[in-house]
Amino acid sequence: MKRLLIANRGEIAVRIIRAARDLGIETVAVASDADTGAKHARLADSVVHIGPAQASKSYLVTDAVVAAARESGADAVHPGYGFLSERADFAAAVADAGLTFVGPDAPVIEQMGDKVRARQVAAAAGVPTVPGTPGGIDDVAVAVEAAAEIGYPVMLKAAAGGGGRGIRVVSDESELATAFPAASREAASAFGDGRMYLERFVRSARHVEVQVLGDGERAIHLFERECSLQRRRQKVIEEAGSPGIDEGIRRAMTEAAVRLCEQVGYRSAGTCEFLVDDDTGEFFFIEMNTRIQVEHPVTELITGIDLVAQQLRIAAGEPLGLAQADVAKRGHAIEFRICAEDPERGFMPCPGRIEHVELPGGPWVRTDTWLASGSQVSPFYDSLVAKLIVWGEDRMSALRRAKRALGEFVVDGVPTTTALLTEIIDQPWFADARFDTGTLETWLEQRANPSPTGATT
Amino acid sequence: MKRLLIANRGEIAVRIIRAARDLGIETVAVASDADTGAKHARLADSVVHIGPAQASKSYLVTDAVVAAARESGADAVHPGYGFLSERADFAAAVADAGLTFVGPDAPVIEQMGDKVRARQVAAAAGVPTVPGTPGGIDDVAVAVEAAAEIGYPVMLKAAAGGGGRGIRVVSDESELATAFPAASREAASAFGDGRMYLERFVRSARHVEVQVLGDGERAIHLFERECSLQRRRQKVIEEAGSPGIDEGIRRAMTEAAVRLCEQVGYRSAGTCEFLVDDDTGEFFFIEMNTRIQVEHPVTELITGIDLVAQQLRIAAGEPLGLAQADVAKRGHAIEFRICAEDPERGFMPCPGRIEHVELPGGPWVRTDTWLASGSQVSPFYDSLVAKLIVWGEDRMSALRRAKRALGEFVVDGVPTTTALLTEIIDQPWFADARFDTGTLETWLEQRANPSPTGATT
Repeated sequence: MKRLLIANRGEIAVRIIRAARDLGIETVAVASDADTGAKHARLADSVVHIGPAQASKSYLVTDAVVAAARESGADAVHPGYGFLSERADFAAAVADAGLTFVGPDAPVIEQMGDKVRARQVAAAAGVPTVPGTPGGIDDVAVAVEAAAEIGYPVMLKAAAGGGGRGIRVVSDESELATAFPAASREAASAFGDGRMYLERFVRSARHVEVQVLGDGERAIHLFERECSLQRRRQKVIEEAGSPGIDEGIRRAMTEAAVRLCEQVGYRSAGTCEFLVDDDTGEFFFIEMNTRIQVEHPVTELITGIDLVAQQLRIAAGEPLGLAQADVAKRGHAIEFRICAEDPERGFMPCPGRIEHVELPGGPWVRTDTWLASGSQVSPFYDSLVAKLIVWGEDRMSALRRAKRALGEFVVDGVPTTTALLTEIIDQPWFADARFDTGTLETWLEQRANPSPTGATT
Repeated sequence: MKRLLIANRGEIAVRIIRAARDLGIETVAVASDADTGAKHARLADSVVHIGPAQASKSYLVTDAVVAAARESGADAVHPGYGFLSERADFAAAVADAGLTFVGPDAPVIEQMGDKVRARQVAAAAGVPTVPGTPGGIDDVAVAVEAAAEIGYPVMLKAAAGGGGRGIRVVSDESELATAFPAASREAASAFGDGRMYLERFVRSARHVEVQVLGDGERAIHLFERECSLQRRRQKVIEEAGSPGIDEGIRRAMTEAAVRLCEQVGYRSAGTCEFLVDDDTGEFFFIEMNTRIQVEHPVTELITGIDLVAQQLRIAAGEPLGLAQADVAKRGHAIEFRICAEDPERGFMPCPGRIEHVELPGGPWVRTDTWLASGSQVSPFYDSLVAKLIVWGEDRMSALRRAKRALGEFVVDGVPTTTALLTEIIDQPWFADARFDTGTLETWLEQRANPSPTGATT
């Protein structure tokens, strides 16, 4: 691999340029009209103009990106995350053009991108998924039998429904016996189909994911990340490792992720997402992301392994240079996503010109960003402007360092989420790691609409 | 320790504020007239004005600093490096004011600051110093006997001389027999004293130092740093560990440093500097620095231990929380000192306004600096504007990362040494670690005055 085109923008394009340069690989950026002066375009060895500001007319146009790679003499393409990164057709187009796609092969992307097929792979690898019925049920007796096997509480979902309509949670057999006929009747009248799915209801869940690396022959894991703190299904703060699971779950979950990757002959960096039932300690495979994740730096900071460099090496055809025994973890790392949004106005995105920036720094503070004094935050893209990643010898010292580093952040010109992130660090549920996937959303709602009595739950 | 006054400025004041904040300690900065808007003054919880721009009228005035500490309600004082950091009288004045001095006790500073007494301590601890005669010799037969014990080549120095005048290097007994009387006569006529010192001449030496931590009872080492690349006795690039010594020397040298510290009951972070004879592999103690060093970050990056935090904890009376077995090293780290100087004009300091700054970043790149867009580089102080510190899994990957990070540095407004540092990385003698304390100076001279034939040595 001699010249790499980075089919992305923003902080991840900057990150990939850095990794490539650290390996002595030339870099080609692509830039839309809005990004001609952007950091990733300035840092790369060369830039190809890719179209108008709208991503749908530039960064998302497969043909334009492949053409840019061919014209620039690149021999490989890194898709980053988002945009075209999980589009099997893009991976195939890159390969068809005789170029190396930095990621798994198109069929693997397709297979893992299809939830039903991904669940089948998991089952074949002996990796648990959320217990549920394989198809729709229209008979209450069958439903009772299925629920006994799944385990209560169970969730009733209309087989033909979608978007959460008509979902009921039942906690025992007698409730199910009453609810099933009613729900089925409702579904029949709403969708013309009375069949119901049953699935285990997880009352309190954590989102924990395992970072993997595979070379097609062999796979290893790089421990897990805790990603439960989300707003509207967007991760806000991520940690490595997870403070919410014990060593037994950690071992079982990481081993499951490795089995899954070896099952599909996975080649590249990838992430297996799991849901952990806080009440039972069980974990269930949800999906696999076949690309680099936004939150990959926390894994890098505890392992000392450069994940993007690993992707590039594997894509270049090198076998995995690491054995599982080479992967040791040290300390704790936390990432904070800093967005140009106003948390006091419903997280409204706030594009505009950044007049002055001072990034936090010093020991064990890493800021992955495209920001500089004079940068323009475009209304056309994601509002993520920086990722602050801190490391500490343990979670407590990482938290203190995070608070310090967030306080050092100076961004004049547009509102950002830094003050809110500092507020979150100060919450006892965060400090004590007592949270699940609903905690942040609930807290934000209470913060926006405090109860008149001042009571909090 | 609740409130810490930082008796310094620039990057080290910023570094100390960060460490204190990471430990939950309030910070008080001191600022001269030139520094009222400086980064360290902006970052601290409060600031005390300390006098005019000239350091001799502000940062170097013991009484003013102690008064600032008392007025601000600080209970401890960190001296940083330079300025008052190795002045025993300052440490004593801080202690007399009832405040905690972050460093060893005044008598230890005094003892280690006196070269003759420091050598005595070394001898008592069984730590080798450069072999030489204890006093002046005026008889050639005695000189021959002493030289045989010291080992050739030996250096002849006038006992009453100074500044390198009249120094001769002799490589065997017959040369000494001829040179001694001549040198002695010259010395007698120049200084009125014909007595001569003899000292082992080290043809090619490396400067290697050992980082230590002691709590008064117990001491440990945090491995060594390679500091041979110097210009006018100022370190320019430092590494941890040293690529120029083998495991046997490393073990013997680090053990010697620990013995030395335990000999004096050393309490704080400190550095034992050694000279390594490239020809024989022998090492000799030169001096001990009883303060934090400019180059401490390279040690932090390979060990994961926060040295300034350790200083603060020890000063607060905590026993050393680390055993030698807790100190493991991982990978390789290199520091580059970036100065506002023009290497093409004799390294002339270049004060002025920094219009725009973009610091390098991303994985395993740390920039310790006070720079921001709009900063003013003052003519009153050291020209060091930033330290770039990179980590890699081995020396080669650290070097590649360093080159990348130096290339990312944007400082508009004043010249800096970044381009020169990049040029040094590309030299084969640097990449192969074939250098001693004279290499950089020699190369710079050849670079400034290339031979007409283009030949280099």
